[in-house]
Amino acid sequence: MKEKDVEEYLVEEDIELDKKLIVPDIYLMKAHTIMLWKTGYLERKKLVSILRALFKLQRENEKGTFKLKGKFEDVHMNVEQYVINECGLETGGMIQFARSRNDQVIADIRIFLREKLLSISLKLTELLDSLLKLAKENIETVYPLYTHLQPAQPSTIAHWALSYFDYFKRNLDRILETYRRVNLNPMGSAAGSGVELNIDRELTMKLLGFEGIQENTLDVISSRGENEAETLFTLSMLMTGLSRISMDLILYSTSEFQFVRLGENYVTGSSLMPQKKNPDTLEITRGKTGRIYGYLMHVLSTLKDLPSGYSRDMQETKASLFKGIEAVEKALKVFPGLIKTIQINRERMVEACLKGKTFAADIANTLVTKHRLSFREAYMTVKNALEDVEEDAEEITEKINEIMEKTKKKTRVKVEEIREALDIVKSINKRNVLGGPSPESVRRMLVKREKELNKIKKGITLKIEEIRGKMGYLDEIAREIIEGKIKEPTQLIRKLRSHKK
Amino acid sequence: MKEKDVEEYLVEEDIELDKKLIVPDIYLMKAHTIMLWKTGYLERKKLVSILRALFKLQRENEKGTFKLKGKFEDVHMNVEQYVINECGLETGGMIQFARSRNDQVIADIRIFLREKLLSISLKLTELLDSLLKLAKENIETVYPLYTHLQPAQPSTIAHWALSYFDYFKRNLDRILETYRRVNLNPMGSAAGSGVELNIDRELTMKLLGFEGIQENTLDVISSRGENEAETLFTLSMLMTGLSRISMDLILYSTSEFQFVRLGENYVTGSSLMPQKKNPDTLEITRGKTGRIYGYLMHVLSTLKDLPSGYSRDMQETKASLFKGIEAVEKALKVFPGLIKTIQINRERMVEACLKGKTFAADIANTLVTKHRLSFREAYMTVKNALEDVEEDAEEITEKINEIMEKTKKKTRVKVEEIREALDIVKSINKRNVLGGPSPESVRRMLVKREKELNKIKKGITLKIEEIRGKMGYLDEIAREIIEGKIKEPTQLIRKLRSHKK
Amino acid sequence: MKEKDVEEYLVEEDIELDKKLIVPDIYLMKAHTIMLWKTGYLERKKLVSILRALFKLQRENEKGTFKLKGKFEDVHMNVEQYVINECGLETGGMIQFARSRNDQVIADIRIFLREKLLSISLKLTELLDSLLKLAKENIETVYPLYTHLQPAQPSTIAHWALSYFDYFKRNLDRILETYRRVNLNPMGSAAGSGVELNIDRELTMKLLGFEGIQENTLDVISSRGENEAETLFTLSMLMTGLSRISMDLILYSTSEFQFVRLGENYVTGSSLMPQKKNPDTLEITRGKTGRIYGYLMHVLSTLKDLPSGYSRDMQETKASLFKGIEAVEKALKVFPGLIKTIQINRERMVEACLKGKTFAADIANTLVTKHRLSFREAYMTVKNALEDVEEDAEEITEKINEIMEKTKKKTRVKVEEIREALDIVKSINKRNVLGGPSPESVRRMLVKREKELNKIKKGITLKIEEIRGKMGYLDEIAREIIEGKIKEPTQLIRKLRSHKK
Amino acid sequence: MKEKDVEEYLVEEDIELDKKLIVPDIYLMKAHTIMLWKTGYLERKKLVSILRALFKLQRENEKGTFKLKGKFEDVHMNVEQYVINECGLETGGMIQFARSRNDQVIADIRIFLREKLLSISLKLTELLDSLLKLAKENIETVYPLYTHLQPAQPSTIAHWALSYFDYFKRNLDRILETYRRVNLNPMGSAAGSGVELNIDRELTMKLLGFEGIQENTLDVISSRGENEAETLFTLSMLMTGLSRISMDLILYSTSEFQFVRLGENYVTGSSLMPQKKNPDTLEITRGKTGRIYGYLMHVLSTLKDLPSGYSRDMQETKASLFKGIEAVEKALKVFPGLIKTIQINRERMVEACLKGKTFAADIANTLVTKHRLSFREAYMTVKNALEDVEEDAEEITEKINEIMEKTKKKTRVKVEEIREALDIVKSINKRNVLGGPSPESVRRMLVKREKELNKIKKGITLKIEEIRGKMGYLDEIAREIIEGKIKEPTQLIRKLRSHKK
Repeated sequence: MKEKDVEEYLVEEDIELDKKLIVPDIYLMKAHTIMLWKTGYLERKKLVSILRALFKLQRENEKGTFKLKGKFEDVHMNVEQYVINECGLETGGMIQFARSRNDQVIADIRIFLREKLLSISLKLTELLDSLLKLAKENIETVYPLYTHLQPAQPSTIAHWALSYFDYFKRNLDRILETYRRVNLNPMGSAAGSGVELNIDRELTMKLLGFEGIQENTLDVISSRGENEAETLFTLSMLMTGLSRISMDLILYSTSEFQFVRLGENYVTGSSLMPQKKNPDTLEITRGKTGRIYGYLMHVLSTLKDLPSGYSRDMQETKASLFKGIEAVEKALKVFPGLIKTIQINRERMVEACLKGKTFAADIANTLVTKHRLSFREAYMTVKNALEDVEEDAEEITEKINEIMEKTKKKTRVKVEEIREALDIVKSINKRNVLGGPSPESVRRMLVKREKELNKIKKGITLKIEEIRGKMGYLDEIAREIIEGKIKEPTQLIRKLRSHKK
Repeated sequence: MKEKDVEEYLVEEDIELDKKLIVPDIYLMKAHTIMLWKTGYLERKKLVSILRALFKLQRENEKGTFKLKGKFEDVHMNVEQYVINECGLETGGMIQFARSRNDQVIADIRIFLREKLLSISLKLTELLDSLLKLAKENIETVYPLYTHLQPAQPSTIAHWALSYFDYFKRNLDRILETYRRVNLNPMGSAAGSGVELNIDRELTMKLLGFEGIQENTLDVISSRGENEAETLFTLSMLMTGLSRISMDLILYSTSEFQFVRLGENYVTGSSLMPQKKNPDTLEITRGKTGRIYGYLMHVLSTLKDLPSGYSRDMQETKASLFKGIEAVEKALKVFPGLIKTIQINRERMVEACLKGKTFAADIANTLVTKHRLSFREAYMTVKNALEDVEEDAEEITEKINEIMEKTKKKTRVKVEEIREALDIVKSINKRNVLGGPSPESVRRMLVKREKELNKIKKGITLKIEEIRGKMGYLDEIAREIIEGKIKEPTQLIRKLRSHKK
Repeated sequence: MKEKDVEEYLVEEDIELDKKLIVPDIYLMKAHTIMLWKTGYLERKKLVSILRALFKLQRENEKGTFKLKGKFEDVHMNVEQYVINECGLETGGMIQFARSRNDQVIADIRIFLREKLLSISLKLTELLDSLLKLAKENIETVYPLYTHLQPAQPSTIAHWALSYFDYFKRNLDRILETYRRVNLNPMGSAAGSGVELNIDRELTMKLLGFEGIQENTLDVISSRGENEAETLFTLSMLMTGLSRISMDLILYSTSEFQFVRLGENYVTGSSLMPQKKNPDTLEITRGKTGRIYGYLMHVLSTLKDLPSGYSRDMQETKASLFKGIEAVEKALKVFPGLIKTIQINRERMVEACLKGKTFAADIANTLVTKHRLSFREAYMTVKNALEDVEEDAEEITEKINEIMEKTKKKTRVKVEEIREALDIVKSINKRNVLGGPSPESVRRMLVKREKELNKIKKGITLKIEEIRGKMGYLDEIAREIIEGKIKEPTQLIRKLRSHKK
Repeated sequence: MKEKDVEEYLVEEDIELDKKLIVPDIYLMKAHTIMLWKTGYLERKKLVSILRALFKLQRENEKGTFKLKGKFEDVHMNVEQYVINECGLETGGMIQFARSRNDQVIADIRIFLREKLLSISLKLTELLDSLLKLAKENIETVYPLYTHLQPAQPSTIAHWALSYFDYFKRNLDRILETYRRVNLNPMGSAAGSGVELNIDRELTMKLLGFEGIQENTLDVISSRGENEAETLFTLSMLMTGLSRISMDLILYSTSEFQFVRLGENYVTGSSLMPQKKNPDTLEITRGKTGRIYGYLMHVLSTLKDLPSGYSRDMQETKASLFKGIEAVEKALKVFPGLIKTIQINRERMVEACLKGKTFAADIANTLVTKHRLSFREAYMTVKNALEDVEEDAEEITEKINEIMEKTKKKTRVKVEEIREALDIVKSINKRNVLGGPSPESVRRMLVKREKELNKIKKGITLKIEEIRGKMGYLDEIAREIIEGKIKEPTQLIRKLRSHKK
């Protein structure tokens, strides 16, 4: 027995985190002991007794009456202890046969993590939805696209929203790539060199709904932290997107820009200054983004110098993984609503386009296409012409023609040409290049993305149901074993075979 | 013109890095100007003149006589300046029509990066080769697998090597996933809101060998840094593997472990202590791993608060990306040779297994399978029995039976049972679970991985050749335009159509 | 009122953390309202009512019956609400006059943080104590000092322990430097541009025990996160030391090194392998070290792009600061005991010195001092001589003299010279350079460090008492105001003046 | 001899970095060999020969004709090789007696680093100067201080500039604290366990201008990386300040804020959009800030798991340290000029104050001080009153009085009171709290800071001269030895004693 301080140091926070692994561990123990029975290492009678105890534990856990105790170190030993208390040492002492806590905790985390990756993906599709909606409503809402935070060229809010759609869509891809590396069975690896017993890794794979087996047993154990790092990187990128959209909206909602107004639900007053409406939700998002980076850095710097096999340093990665997931989940709960309640100030944005002279490159292009200047000449001409000029077509025309004369060009621009370039709406319509902001181009993108999103949603929902289905199926098998419907391993195998994936 | 200090601050280091983008930028300009001609924005005569200038530049660059100048800021402006000097402002001033440096630099980096991702992948297969070789030669080389750096259970060096094989194989997967997001055409995005011209993004895609188009033009510009972050994360994971294998080998080659000896080429003497052979290559690897983490952290913390569109903060990510790639390339040049020249000390490792009592769990399992104790009982029995005992079968038998008596178990172990558990080689043979270290299991894995690796190598080589082929094809087209074989856009289109992918 | 999800996102975790700020906030409000009275902004009657409420709140908080509520956002608004409930809006609504939550939270955190910095410092002196003790007991315990994890030269465990003493001593210096920048009064800054009232920042400074005032009021608000970053860096360095001492001990306690054995309290068994004693306490320490780095990275990446003045991103730094402090506190509770219970295996270490040929440089030096070879010649001679030789004086002598002959040196070494170099104990005695490992040198260092440590301990204890004294004094003043002993501001001022610092 | 790839991997980049250590290493070798002579390990004749060679090397290095060669690994071996070539093996082979590369590289880095810390400090005082100047010129320049990027309260540009002054002043303190831990003599530590010779660490300390000796010889070697981490943290904080001031100025110079205009020298045009003036200098600064964080993270993650004593992982920290210093040096060259050339748009800022209703809290305070509402009541009254109102005194008065009536307050505000609150200039004058933005308060701060800054500058300049003086003195001694003016160690000692510090 450890001294209090040492127990606290090793266990205290971790056992708090282990709460999230109670359900995974119960399912794991069901599958594992059924496998032990099927491979002949556990008598049917003992299995039945163990399964009953696990179901009982499950109910107590649901009711909240089951508490993890620090003196038993972790969820695995707590579960074992519960089963031993229920069934006696002779029976309960068998549930941890042919495994170690090393493969067990990886399995628990993966059962937990795969579900989280899917639920985050689903939440992310809601954000994608809200961005599509915003885009649809703002196909003709002009705004000045910025580079270096200086007005660059006119674009539309729809185009802006769709750019984030595409960013988050790539995040979805990354999450699902990670998912594929997560949903693999580690059980059977024990402490890394497997076991000298005839156990059946394929059976636990099937019972637990894993899509494959991570084969090399040492690789399994060494890879603790790898799913964690990859997940945290993926979440870092996701949060980076939220942080950047936050940055945009914080700027656009300043009293200097006044492009948008955030929904009342997402701003907060000051305790001192009565006039204030602060974009706290967005600021918290930027703040949380840095936390995820920190968690990633923690996991990486932990993995860097670990020898192969398990070291307890890895335990600490659990906190960073869980905290990272929690932050992202909360952010994704809030963001779709925030996006949907943005109020747009169209006038301010058109005005900002004109003031920011976002038409300059268009004029230069006109000099190229209509007046046969080379681009670099046209650029220099417009640069000089716009130096001290207001957004006035006559004035600009005059200035340009002055320069034309000086540089001995024979051509002269007409005021209508400049007027056309200054017409922001027309300018937008012409930006019809593939992926550009013209209403036509944006509509093409919208149609494509709506279809794609529906397909993605269905895919994720299917996966979620599949996994829930597998867990239900495991319960069903366990119950049939208890009830005597499944008496022989052969019956189990037949049942599994008949189950369509 | 900027003051010297400011120019130095903004440009100096960056233009050094831009050297790697000269070739990509030349190809980019070829494709871009051919596209301008095809879409009617550039006369044939001017195109020919530009293409000649670009070929000339290419030759000068190969000879090393072309130098980037800081006063022109970056590779793009340097290339433009070169072409203007060659063809005059009227012609040369057209090459940067209908693009901006924002889409241009992304295109350059992607052309550079996709090649690096493939060449790193190919180098990585050599490492995989060396691990397979090491595994093949050590199928029966027993060593004590560690957890917590304490001997845990017996395994083999083949199993150990294959565990790293699988780790690096996943890295390969991650690199190729990143590759798919990298090899997309950004051209046509200009500063983010596309252009109001009828340019042809599909054509530049084909000419430059991109596999698709990144559609939304603002998304393209905002995504600078995303490929960088993803690549650096992938490289971080790759280096983490090298760092961990280094850690293992540093330990195994200490004078206390003496499991392995590194090849003379990979150790270094001391300037003070004549007896020393230090594993410098491995230590440098750990050191470089932290650098890649730092580069990743740099890119992430840069992206976090950037508004949409280009900000010059992004320029700085170039250094971190290039440096990270360089470090990994160098490491991968060294490691296959290092792995191949490891000398193994078989006796020391068997000895370490015995001393480390790696047989303890096997004895416990024997008590379960042969003597019907539950696992937890068996575990406690062996734990107590081994407390102050040498690795001696008689002594262990006696101790266990004493405890059996005390705990009122009716069964007694036989000394042969214990002897068998102490026989490390037999123990290994029995660890025949899927993915386990038994020679049989390892041979199964070897066969599978050899096939897989061959397939992967072919795939990567093919991709490399394909991209080189595309660049050659672009040169061919450019030459045919110069030589007058292609006179009309229709001829170009026909040629492209006839080209099988 | 915010939607539940938004409240959860903004407040949930933070209000949990704010528990640690209840006591600081109560004291802050006492000092602040006394100041408001003294400067004429608050009537005596109202002050008395407020102070009574604050004392009542303090008692409830001690009993644990006061709960922070999410709907009031943070500790400050919860405390205000409590006082309003107790005294009515007219009176209670005055406590947040002439401040904002921006200066208030900084004040709360500093009151919390200064105490933590001191208590961590005190804990650190216990670690220093344990290292001194270990050193004293092992002045003559030889071990092979490693470079590159290869035996380099003989040293002693005392020398090793003292090297960590000096490392942690520098950490103490860094903590106390940070402390000086923390213990400054931010109150009066309000939202950053101070207040247009005649308040007295010096008075709150005195009442709250701050050692100075952070003057510029915008600087105060912008500096949120700076104390946090500095503290987390300092703690990162502290943990780095613990991580490295852990690394040493993990290695030294492997079954291959067997230099030390850790106390039973600090090792942990396996759930699978009965033989194991794993150095979990040390591994957890390395794991926690990476977490602190991550927290630091979070704070830095948060600060990087914040404009001046408060942004709510800063709120998130609270979690990282608090978590970092907690981890370090727990580690420091455990480590002194761990160090004190290390058991040393002297024989193994002498043996390792010989096997590692740690005498090689000494032989080379002998060739220099006794045989007038230049160092580089001597080095090369010994390097070649030791190549394939056991640690045998005769053999070494012979080999060296062979080389001497070949290289035409006239001198020859005597076997006694080599024997002397091989005598590890003598070698240690000769390493008497300032700071070297000879017993004489180590004793000198011990004496000096013991004195120094005593002085440091006294200094820290004094500071801790001083701060507690100040808080007690504030309570005393508040009670005297309630009880009518202090009726006029002049009495308050007189009392403060008479109080010796 | 290593294979090319391995040499490249281990040495290539590092030897490039070592260029900066050539001069330090030459001085180190002078001091070290003089010490060897003084302690009797080196004959005078040999010393003279060595010193001559070192002076010659110094001249060649100044002329740029000395090149470091990769095959000799590092600067130390290159210098040794040079001296051997000049003086023969018998003499030159002595320069590395009684040291190792481990203490030598630390000494070199510290000689380099102390100078850099001082020169960075001096550069930083120029930035402080420019901030003082900006403040002096803008004592009455009102601007809206922001919190959450929403206008909060009126302040002045002088106050803003001084807030950064104080921030950077604390950075100066941190640099000088680091300096004190850097400027300590490591020589004599050899590989960590000192030497078994009678060398004189105090003498090398004096000759090299170190202010003390880092005593424990193992601590010295283990501490490689500690100075690096501390420096990089300090530089991270410094850059964080530059990044935040950049963020402010990027915002303030947008076409939406238009508070300031940056000097032409610090903005850059677009290659596509002729109208643009982008704040590239500021953006590059934010980008470089993240790089320094990355370097810090690299060093920390490297140190974390290193056992005591030297490991070659540490070599890699050199690149991060040098690169970090370089970036900061360049930034500090640019920033003072940037600050000095900021053009202020006073009208826009007053306007922004009014539009942002920065007077709201002042009105609330008026309700408290003049109308005896409690602060929370006053706050709620103003909050409701300002909801849909322009910045018009009559309208506001009316609204407030309506609410007063509704909430049954007997008092009524007068329009003059509101008018006064709306008078931004008066409001600023009243913000006269210690550290507040009133002109009076700012002038007090200016006077204090000017004095302080002068003192600091003198202090730093003195330290720089002192160190240069010491190096000159070492040269003088070396020359006197060569010239025979110093023939005996006693003469050396006498000379040193007579030299006032």
